[in-house]
Amino acid sequence: MSSLPIPREPLRRVAVTGGTHGNEMSGVCLVQHWLREPGEMQRPSFTAVPVIANPKAVAACRRYVDRDLNRTFINSNLTTTATADDPYEVTRARELNQLLGPKASGKAFDFLLDLHNTTANMGTCLIADSIHNVFVMHLCRHLQLQNPEQRCPVLLYQRPGEESYNVHSVAKNGLGLELGPQPQGVLRGDIFSRMRSLVTSTLDFIELFNQGAAFPAFETEAYRFVGLVDFPRTEDGNLAGTVHPQLQDRDFEPLHPGAPIFQMFSGKDVLYEGETTVYPVFINEAAYYEKGTAFIQAEKLTFSVPAMPALTSSP
Amino acid sequence: MSSLPIPREPLRRVAVTGGTHGNEMSGVCLVQHWLREPGEMQRPSFTAVPVIANPKAVAACRRYVDRDLNRTFINSNLTTTATADDPYEVTRARELNQLLGPKASGKAFDFLLDLHNTTANMGTCLIADSIHNVFVMHLCRHLQLQNPEQRCPVLLYQRPGEESYNVHSVAKNGLGLELGPQPQGVLRGDIFSRMRSLVTSTLDFIELFNQGAAFPAFETEAYRFVGLVDFPRTEDGNLAGTVHPQLQDRDFEPLHPGAPIFQMFSGKDVLYEGETTVYPVFINEAAYYEKGTAFIQAEKLTFSVPAMPALTSSP
Repeated sequence: MSSLPIPREPLRRVAVTGGTHGNEMSGVCLVQHWLREPGEMQRPSFTAVPVIANPKAVAACRRYVDRDLNRTFINSNLTTTATADDPYEVTRARELNQLLGPKASGKAFDFLLDLHNTTANMGTCLIADSIHNVFVMHLCRHLQLQNPEQRCPVLLYQRPGEESYNVHSVAKNGLGLELGPQPQGVLRGDIFSRMRSLVTSTLDFIELFNQGAAFPAFETEAYRFVGLVDFPRTEDGNLAGTVHPQLQDRDFEPLHPGAPIFQMFSGKDVLYEGETTVYPVFINEAAYYEKGTAFIQAEKLTFSVPAMPALTSSP
Repeated sequence: MSSLPIPREPLRRVAVTGGTHGNEMSGVCLVQHWLREPGEMQRPSFTAVPVIANPKAVAACRRYVDRDLNRTFINSNLTTTATADDPYEVTRARELNQLLGPKASGKAFDFLLDLHNTTANMGTCLIADSIHNVFVMHLCRHLQLQNPEQRCPVLLYQRPGEESYNVHSVAKNGLGLELGPQPQGVLRGDIFSRMRSLVTSTLDFIELFNQGAAFPAFETEAYRFVGLVDFPRTEDGNLAGTVHPQLQDRDFEPLHPGAPIFQMFSGKDVLYEGETTVYPVFINEAAYYEKGTAFIQAEKLTFSVPAMPALTSSP
């Protein structure tokens, strides 16, 4: 495995973004709270900055205004000249790239934690870009060990070879938290508390690293995107069936060939016709209907993460 | 109790509306399905008409475009002259009033069943206008007896003395089905099947009535609107706390004085300071945040419904 470089200096510039999708309320409300009461985010070796990523979408309580901000951080959007016709989220992505990046530059923030909710039964999902990012894999391990009552699966959402496009790609390192199930536009107390605790654990991990802690090697697993499955639809694009009750809420559980995946309105079952077992995730996520996605198919990987040595120059 | 008149003729004109709120997917998908395949709605003595109530909101997968359609059927909207500046839903309410009403006229449809979902844990809730409508109370009783594994509580949503404003008020008799919990923009198979079965039972009840069945008197209970409670908020109107985990998902359960209702982001609990036990409903409904409502307080009534005699002129 060819690991990405581990930070050689303490992480000084950390951001926590909420409202990247304006109707995912846990992150919206946590960031709004920390903007008023920032003390909880302070640590001896750094302070994290709370940022509402898409303020117009938050004000409208919608996922986005013109386009999905969390698919917008590609170079062709960030580096082209602004025009009056730019979608709002392209303009906002440039602003965030100035504030927290520029992406892939030495000036970028050291770490960005991006807060999301899903209507799917994803539990506490950690969205990472690469198993080769040793720092992020150790952070995921830390979150799993700190929350033994939850599974905290790691999901590699970005497809291999694809250009990075999400908010946390503007920083040198980043992670997405994806907590569910929670309806869009609803704040549940249980999920709010869980997300708050995960942010605290993330900041504590960065503090540990900055203070010179070393982290041993470990074996772990992650789920990697392999494909999309759309709903059955009528000729005019309307739904012709639902996610099968035997699949609903079974995110990260194995789906074997021949198992039911949809129930048609006619009553007929649609079976999974793949030849290998996959792990469905984002099952019945509200925001993905318009993307033509009933669920995402993932494969399970098992891999080793090398030890992360202590910083030689602790603060 | 002064009962409203029981129909003296068979019900010939019945409508089932979905998409009154465009992101409540069970009714949207059921009506779209029945528009293609109407056979399931046919009965020997009548045929029910499926109607998408708010097609623009359905296309946008939003609750409404300009204003809440289900608060729009008041006389001042229905009877005033149309102008180019009318909100879309006022125009649409006039169209539906022509199609299914006119409201309070002899020409109105005999019965309208309006299909809704909620993000709250309301289970199978039957929304009626008055306990004095004997026909509708017998229908509710029928639905409760046909679905013994569900509670099917009756909720009187309209405040006493208030002008009726909902879609089903354009017909001579009507009922709303409110099924949850389901996120906005999501179709769950279990709730879809439950709603489909309830519509079938409703049409079967109308068929029984039309065929000359008699229905005995009974004792029953219902929940009646008594007030609203908003979230705790900051000076700028943002949320300052969540529905308390001990209240979340406890729709229709008694709330006693001194019980926690909110958990502030500061960690402090907010207690219910009322002097009497109430029954919270629509707890943490996504659509009610903008209405300033964290939950609705209801009181429980016990009352008698008189027998409904057989039609003297069955078909």
